Amino acid sequence: MKPSLKIIKIGGHILDDSKAKKEFLTQFAAIDGLKLLVHGGGKSATALSKKMQLDVQMVDGRRITDAQTLEVITMVYAGKINTSIVSMLQALSCNAVGCTGADANSIQSIKRPVSDVDYGFVGDIQKVNSEYISLLINAGLTPVFSAITHNNKGQLLNTNADTIAASLAKSLAEIFDVTLYFCFEKTGVLEDKYDETSVIKIIDKAKYKGLVKSGIVSDGMLPKLQNCFDALENQVSKVCIGQPSMLSDHSNNYTTLTL
Amino acid sequence: MKPSLKIIKIGGHILDDSKAKKEFLTQFAAIDGLKLLVHGGGKSATALSKKMQLDVQMVDGRRITDAQTLEVITMVYAGKINTSIVSMLQALSCNAVGCTGADANSIQSIKRPVSDVDYGFVGDIQKVNSEYISLLINAGLTPVFSAITHNNKGQLLNTNADTIAASLAKSLAEIFDVTLYFCFEKTGVLEDKYDETSVIKIIDKAKYKGLVKSGIVSDGMLPKLQNCFDALENQVSKVCIGQPSMLSDHSNNYTTLTL
Repeated sequence: MKPSLKIIKIGGHILDDSKAKKEFLTQFAAIDGLKLLVHGGGKSATALSKKMQLDVQMVDGRRITDAQTLEVITMVYAGKINTSIVSMLQALSCNAVGCTGADANSIQSIKRPVSDVDYGFVGDIQKVNSEYISLLINAGLTPVFSAITHNNKGQLLNTNADTIAASLAKSLAEIFDVTLYFCFEKTGVLEDKYDETSVIKIIDKAKYKGLVKSGIVSDGMLPKLQNCFDALENQVSKVCIGQPSMLSDHSNNYTTLTL
Repeated sequence: MKPSLKIIKIGGHILDDSKAKKEFLTQFAAIDGLKLLVHGGGKSATALSKKMQLDVQMVDGRRITDAQTLEVITMVYAGKINTSIVSMLQALSCNAVGCTGADANSIQSIKRPVSDVDYGFVGDIQKVNSEYISLLINAGLTPVFSAITHNNKGQLLNTNADTIAASLAKSLAEIFDVTLYFCFEKTGVLEDKYDETSVIKIIDKAKYKGLVKSGIVSDGMLPKLQNCFDALENQVSKVCIGQPSMLSDHSNNYTTLTL
């Protein structure tokens, strides 16, 4: 039997709020067993870009990443946010290690080809090298990935944190029994986006198609759920979406996805 | 017999010059055997501080580190510089991993006590946990440390890169046969600081005392050499000071320190 591994993606809104961040990290540190954390951190990067008088350009919620923006993102994600999370987790007796995809070439990407939109230095993941990551995990360490990868030719690339979490989950599912959690500020996938009590508890593929058709699942939730089903189709055991409280064993108010 | 390990500290001036940086990393990547890199990156942090309209205060060449300055330093050292070095080394087939002292609590410090000067969030190293570092090295990986440590209570601390290199060398000397290299823009310790050909080839403790007395060793070179002798007195086999060319086996134009 494969050992269990929990992979948790934490959303930017929670990291932007220092109280919510501390609560989340306390919950994360308390999880028994093997675990791995993935984070982005959109708002801080936007704030620093503005302070440095750089234009912030978004298309469909995705950041256009020119060379200067990539520098800001690298500083904020891999520097400020990642290092502070690792230090806070250490204080909570969680033996964390900060990572980017460049470390040990653990996540290799290619620069997204230019089509209608030129996203700039944005990476599409090609390959996860799970050897390094499992070395850390098997030594009792907790990897904390920021949303930076590279092309293995010296170019860093801004990469969607949801996609990183799903790609790590798929790759590590060969070695571990992986549950993937997407933690964000909402209680889960909602029937009515204005009603936090309208969580859809279970979504299978048929239900998902219906939700897309009816428009209940749209915008940013679409690629998130696509990532989830992709993970489930690649040996990941379980995918959950909701607030950090779902990480405790007592909560059942979140969305679980199944094939 | 202990396996050989080369610990290399690279100075900020070399990293500030993109051509010199690339040359250094090419030389570093070509070193056979086990190795570890330590870097700071002073000028970039000053440039970003100015861009963000923060005051830059230095006392005796050391940076006063208030909360905002610490954030800048963390972003520049652990984010921008470290991540880019790791990615460039990967492109040169050197299997690098970026580290701060917070990772696996590898370098634990205390905030420097306030005396005549309040340096702010500056760390004095208390303890190196060599277990994590040797896990990486023994797996064929090359740790790349930026000059950030923490107090294991959630506080990151700006820490002198020379001291980090010397502390890592002393701690790892229990497991490895360590040679410590301080690479900077000068050819070594100079008899006449305006004459790059006046390198003092060998300095022992008696000679060092004479150089301090005569004022030939002063300012920033004083703590650097003190760190070197401290390392030699703690099982480190050899300490060398000079330009990156000393890393190749053919050069002999640098300073070697002995007890």
